Amino acid sequence: MKEDSLEITGYRFSAVAAGIKQPGSERRDLALICADRPATAACVTTTNLVCAAPVEITRERFKAGSCQAILINSGNANAVTGRQGIDDALVLLDQVAQHLNIDRRLVAPMSTGVIGAPLPVDRMRAAVPELVAGLDATKAPDVATAMMTTDTRPKTVLLNETIGGRSVRILGMVKGAGMIAPNMATLLAVALVDVRVEAVMLGKALRDATRNTFNAITIDGDTSTNDTVIALTGGAPFAEELGSDHDATQAFAGMLQTACANLARQVAADGEGATKLVEIRVRGARDKRDALTVARTIAESPLVKTAFYGQDPNWGRIIAAAGRSGVSFDPDRLDLFIDGIPVLKNGAPRSDEWEPQAAQAMKKREFFVLLDLNHGTAEASMLTTDLSEEYVRINAAYRT
Amino acid sequence: MKEDSLEITGYRFSAVAAGIKQPGSERRDLALICADRPATAACVTTTNLVCAAPVEITRERFKAGSCQAILINSGNANAVTGRQGIDDALVLLDQVAQHLNIDRRLVAPMSTGVIGAPLPVDRMRAAVPELVAGLDATKAPDVATAMMTTDTRPKTVLLNETIGGRSVRILGMVKGAGMIAPNMATLLAVALVDVRVEAVMLGKALRDATRNTFNAITIDGDTSTNDTVIALTGGAPFAEELGSDHDATQAFAGMLQTACANLARQVAADGEGATKLVEIRVRGARDKRDALTVARTIAESPLVKTAFYGQDPNWGRIIAAAGRSGVSFDPDRLDLFIDGIPVLKNGAPRSDEWEPQAAQAMKKREFFVLLDLNHGTAEASMLTTDLSEEYVRINAAYRT
Repeated sequence: MKEDSLEITGYRFSAVAAGIKQPGSERRDLALICADRPATAACVTTTNLVCAAPVEITRERFKAGSCQAILINSGNANAVTGRQGIDDALVLLDQVAQHLNIDRRLVAPMSTGVIGAPLPVDRMRAAVPELVAGLDATKAPDVATAMMTTDTRPKTVLLNETIGGRSVRILGMVKGAGMIAPNMATLLAVALVDVRVEAVMLGKALRDATRNTFNAITIDGDTSTNDTVIALTGGAPFAEELGSDHDATQAFAGMLQTACANLARQVAADGEGATKLVEIRVRGARDKRDALTVARTIAESPLVKTAFYGQDPNWGRIIAAAGRSGVSFDPDRLDLFIDGIPVLKNGAPRSDEWEPQAAQAMKKREFFVLLDLNHGTAEASMLTTDLSEEYVRINAAYRT
Repeated sequence: MKEDSLEITGYRFSAVAAGIKQPGSERRDLALICADRPATAACVTTTNLVCAAPVEITRERFKAGSCQAILINSGNANAVTGRQGIDDALVLLDQVAQHLNIDRRLVAPMSTGVIGAPLPVDRMRAAVPELVAGLDATKAPDVATAMMTTDTRPKTVLLNETIGGRSVRILGMVKGAGMIAPNMATLLAVALVDVRVEAVMLGKALRDATRNTFNAITIDGDTSTNDTVIALTGGAPFAEELGSDHDATQAFAGMLQTACANLARQVAADGEGATKLVEIRVRGARDKRDALTVARTIAESPLVKTAFYGQDPNWGRIIAAAGRSGVSFDPDRLDLFIDGIPVLKNGAPRSDEWEPQAAQAMKKREFFVLLDLNHGTAEASMLTTDLSEEYVRINAAYRT
């Protein structure tokens, strides 16, 4: 195994074309990740009241803190498919377990695609033998590709760190795009860890990492019916234990968050037609919740996003978004910076000198906006993109 | 005065080109509405924490329940302009009051356009004499045009009804577009009534009408820094009193709401690039607030709006939006109808027969979506449009 190849001890991968969306298509749309033995596992799933069959099954099966295989499909979300959706998924999982010769409760499903259409179970079941036969340590890139829907590229990350004298490796992959909005933007993410991490600690680390990364990018409306983040650890038979001392725990949580942050950034950057990746930082809020609400309102504002596209330092739109966020603050105490350039001080525009500088900063592919409410000590940030396509030109040009 | 001309006893109108956005432009951007005597008046203004100077002044001046003239400009919102913004507006209002020879406190401002830029006071002040000199009973259409920003057409309404044996006339005009989002979409509306209506009753009728009409269309994020709705009544020296008996009060409130509903519909229909006007009805909610929240979440969902554009009865997106609205309901009890055609019953898709019918219904320019939560007796509706432009084609085609 080469140090920089997309492989990780204890896990194998496979992907095949099952014709899920379109019979006969040669696009790979059914994938399998399999640990060499039952892995210690955790998951974070959508908060949407309407959640998909695979989400319900994954939640249930992960309660035991153990998982050995993940069956992933694109092309069909298996959401709002009622009892039939559950039954269909269970049939497929059983089929996979049988071919892997493992306990059926150790297989979890992930699905993404159209809502409300029944899974093409027969075509999918027919593909399982080939899928299992194809398992190989080198095929993680194929899985990352098979889980794509409107993503323009597969998204993976590989981290190596030494924690408490032990080498720790995390291989992550994610599927999700469409920051810019009109997209289901289901987010499916998998993090595979070679060392074994105790389940309760893993769950906490995964929830924290998700909140600070995947939940801090603006995918339309926060959460789809299928959003799922899964972590498996200790896939190899003699995988080392991470250990439970405080330092190791903290170091691992940080490493997991780094992996998730890397993947989240790739999702944001894959927004359709996005030309900018912008971090919205809010500080000086009364509490974290207020800070997040303001950051999210700005990050999701079509007005703000079209101004980013137009490279127009139209700060009026930014603070108008803050003003309608529902969070209480004093407009006369706002300080605003665009990529570090002071634009507003105490709610009033500075002299005109900043404008060409700010406009210049906004020509970069990545920059940040910092709004200080001067109302407290809490802060938060969100990652967003511009709104770039043809149809927004009229609005991007609104001030010119 | 012809019965169907856009005139109303007691009010005169004028509009001139003051070069507000661009010096020397011949586009009319400064307008005046003037009653023949102090009118009994009411206003409803934005709930945005960051509100414009004209909004602050209008709120203050309307406390007395009286107003004789409204100075309206497009091209500059006079928002986030600090103390200078207030001073600038007051200078202009004084100038208008002086030329009209009326009490300065009887003149109110309305502004729409760019945020954060100072008003070009000198150019505007220079235009006031011509503006006042041009006042004429027939020029309401000029005012409706001068207040436009990205609106594609002026929007007016004229209603005649008999209430308690008296003829009552309402002339309304509104400015606002950009349902589809990336637009400031400030909403400025004026309703002029020939009979005199008592101020407290007028205020209540205007608030109710606004809530059920202008606040029931999805303009991005609910409210801009400048949103203002003004009603003036009894502009003529010997205007009749409406009277305060219950029947007359109710009839007038209904008439005012009809006028506002007509204008709100015109605003929705003027959404940039909109090809559909869709009413989202939610019923069976626990309370009105829940019903509105669900309706609004659906109406503002880019996913739902692109499906409307694609004429795709993609009900999964509709109920996924409901599911993330934060309102609690049982997904297994949802009934969904597209333009009256039953699509979901008890949360499950009906047989496939409905699909071509629903797709056919969605080819119409106007249709409705009805979601029954079967959870209570409250209901609400929102008016929205599709998301139509070039950049959304990839998503509109997502299911095909």
